[in-house]
Amino acid sequence: MKYSDKILKTPSSFIRNILKVTDAPDVISFAGGLPNPISFPIDEMQQSINHAIEANGPRLFQYSTTEGYLPLRQYIADKYKKDHGLDFDPEDILITTGSQQALSLISQVLLNKGDGVVMEEPGYLGAIQSFTLAEPEFYSVMLEEDGLNVDQLEQTLATNDNIKFIYTVPNFHNPTGITYSKEKREAVYNVVKNYDVVLIEDDPYGELRWSGEKLPYIGAGRLENSVLLGSFSKIVTPGMRLGYIVTKNKELMHHINTAKQATDLHTNIFSQMVIHDYLVNNDLAAHVSKIINLYETQAKAMLSAIAQYFPSSVKYTKPDGGMFVWVTLEEGTSALDVFNKAMEEKVAFVPGDPFYTTKTNVNTLRLNYTNSSPEVIEEGIKRLGKILYSVSAEKLTV
Amino acid sequence: MKYSDKILKTPSSFIRNILKVTDAPDVISFAGGLPNPISFPIDEMQQSINHAIEANGPRLFQYSTTEGYLPLRQYIADKYKKDHGLDFDPEDILITTGSQQALSLISQVLLNKGDGVVMEEPGYLGAIQSFTLAEPEFYSVMLEEDGLNVDQLEQTLATNDNIKFIYTVPNFHNPTGITYSKEKREAVYNVVKNYDVVLIEDDPYGELRWSGEKLPYIGAGRLENSVLLGSFSKIVTPGMRLGYIVTKNKELMHHINTAKQATDLHTNIFSQMVIHDYLVNNDLAAHVSKIINLYETQAKAMLSAIAQYFPSSVKYTKPDGGMFVWVTLEEGTSALDVFNKAMEEKVAFVPGDPFYTTKTNVNTLRLNYTNSSPEVIEEGIKRLGKILYSVSAEKLTV
Repeated sequence: MKYSDKILKTPSSFIRNILKVTDAPDVISFAGGLPNPISFPIDEMQQSINHAIEANGPRLFQYSTTEGYLPLRQYIADKYKKDHGLDFDPEDILITTGSQQALSLISQVLLNKGDGVVMEEPGYLGAIQSFTLAEPEFYSVMLEEDGLNVDQLEQTLATNDNIKFIYTVPNFHNPTGITYSKEKREAVYNVVKNYDVVLIEDDPYGELRWSGEKLPYIGAGRLENSVLLGSFSKIVTPGMRLGYIVTKNKELMHHINTAKQATDLHTNIFSQMVIHDYLVNNDLAAHVSKIINLYETQAKAMLSAIAQYFPSSVKYTKPDGGMFVWVTLEEGTSALDVFNKAMEEKVAFVPGDPFYTTKTNVNTLRLNYTNSSPEVIEEGIKRLGKILYSVSAEKLTV
Repeated sequence: MKYSDKILKTPSSFIRNILKVTDAPDVISFAGGLPNPISFPIDEMQQSINHAIEANGPRLFQYSTTEGYLPLRQYIADKYKKDHGLDFDPEDILITTGSQQALSLISQVLLNKGDGVVMEEPGYLGAIQSFTLAEPEFYSVMLEEDGLNVDQLEQTLATNDNIKFIYTVPNFHNPTGITYSKEKREAVYNVVKNYDVVLIEDDPYGELRWSGEKLPYIGAGRLENSVLLGSFSKIVTPGMRLGYIVTKNKELMHHINTAKQATDLHTNIFSQMVIHDYLVNNDLAAHVSKIINLYETQAKAMLSAIAQYFPSSVKYTKPDGGMFVWVTLEEGTSALDVFNKAMEEKVAFVPGDPFYTTKTNVNTLRLNYTNSSPEVIEEGIKRLGKILYSVSAEKLTV
């Protein structure tokens, strides 16, 4: 039997494939990007479920509209107004089955085979996987500590007229943990506004900031072809798969709606009504601030353990929020080799390879800190440090 | 801005677009394919929610596996064993975000642009829409009262080597309500087994039978490239978007899993755990038999009203189960014209057009009876009858 070219080109997710191994109870895993389960507001969700059933009865269980539950879309629009001063209406918002689905819908709507996609290098592997199914040509633009390299972005857009969109994660980037600076956002905007391309700002982690000030989006609210992606996965629950697409481009939204019909008709209405009830009847800001405190403690435990246990030649990012630290080993060290050695010592992470569209056998890796206690983090980093010394020219001096 | 060829070719769903008009409280709607909301087991679902939260805690709210919740997949495998004598294992089953997503995943995995898809004529419009996004060539094979025209199927497969799959709804077909006879199933199997194509049997309505005996599947359990699709939408709840793909072809399942990762990571785990709890702690057969009794009464009300109020030149199917009656008007009558007239009289249905890949302005239409009471059905059919007489040569004799 012959399969489609697009599925044969699409890699199976490295992370999803190793989750079964890394989730063994005796493995310390920095591999997944899982929220800490102690952050789930279970009692409040149970209340909202009871309340939503009482208030809506069979409507929670029936088919529903493709664009999503209107009061939830209104809540999201209001929140952008309040938090960012952005002027969105419910019709600018479509609820998706997690924000992974948003990536899939957008690539189906915009990409013919061979069309261009600008990716941050390194970039989110779930996006690479999803876009690959549309058989694009990827253009990598280097991600620096304060965001995309603007000269390379300009050069890439100027010399390739097949580019349909640019994919960015401006806040607490996956996999690197970096945040675009205010100046870099402005510089990226000033390049992108001159081209007929869509700018995607994927922002699942934006609310999880413990340091520095909240920054304006790059294009949302001012670029005609701006698409903003959001999610309830990191601030309430990922299990219910609730994300959303925001764009004021009505033609684009119309096509996204058609693709959504063809893909799964509509998002789980039970979960939409329940989360809406949760959002309007609880203090979300107070809940998020608990998550932030938790993750800040875990991040600091990881950064201080890295400072203590890793060779000094190893470089790493220091996030102001979010879920990840990005580690760069000495030139020539294979993160995949280190991964194999680490699994023998029962500690897991994601080697950098799946975050690149062109490079393999890289010397970078991603560490997640949100799903382990500070004590476990220290023990895991200590084990990892020993391995890094063993493959390094540096001597371990204890 | 330029959109992809595939989205420009894909029609927006006629049904989803008219739902807002047809759902007005003063409109009698035979348009949607909605289960009767009085059939939703709300109290039992509330019990299962409480129980699942108590038993699983944060696991209901966390990320989960792409293939789906193992105990639910085991339940489905066991059910096919019990109900159909089919030998499936959990690894042959992947949980989807409604069975609409199954259609989307399969077409992404199998279809290059221009590859062939055999569709029943008329066929399910959601499938036509979903497959269209992969830019296939459609081959229509006539659907007769007992299933596909086998000679035409054989001829189509023999002369077109680009065909990747055949899509069928063997039980209580959407839109026609017909069921493949035992002999026709055997005949279709004997043709398909000689070709390297996938046979999809989409079976959302199979359990809703009030007349005749349960029939074996066409290819499930005996064709290597068999794919069976199932759903909880018509027997428990559509709002939670839970369907599934069953195939023993491991390579095909591997690719479907990758496409599922790229599309939405995994299906809502909260809903999977809740429905599993519902299924194992309630008498599903008793619940389904209540739905069957309800729909049988409604179907009979519609058929008897049609016999009374429609011109005798109008032909219609008499389903043994499921949700639809298919009506064929006099040659030359436009169902779309009748639709427009009917909307003036506040009665809605789906004109046949979106169920064909090649024909337009057809003289067929689909009526749904599951979402209206017998009294409302009689009133709606009466109004429709008047319109049909007004466009017919026949005289209305009261």
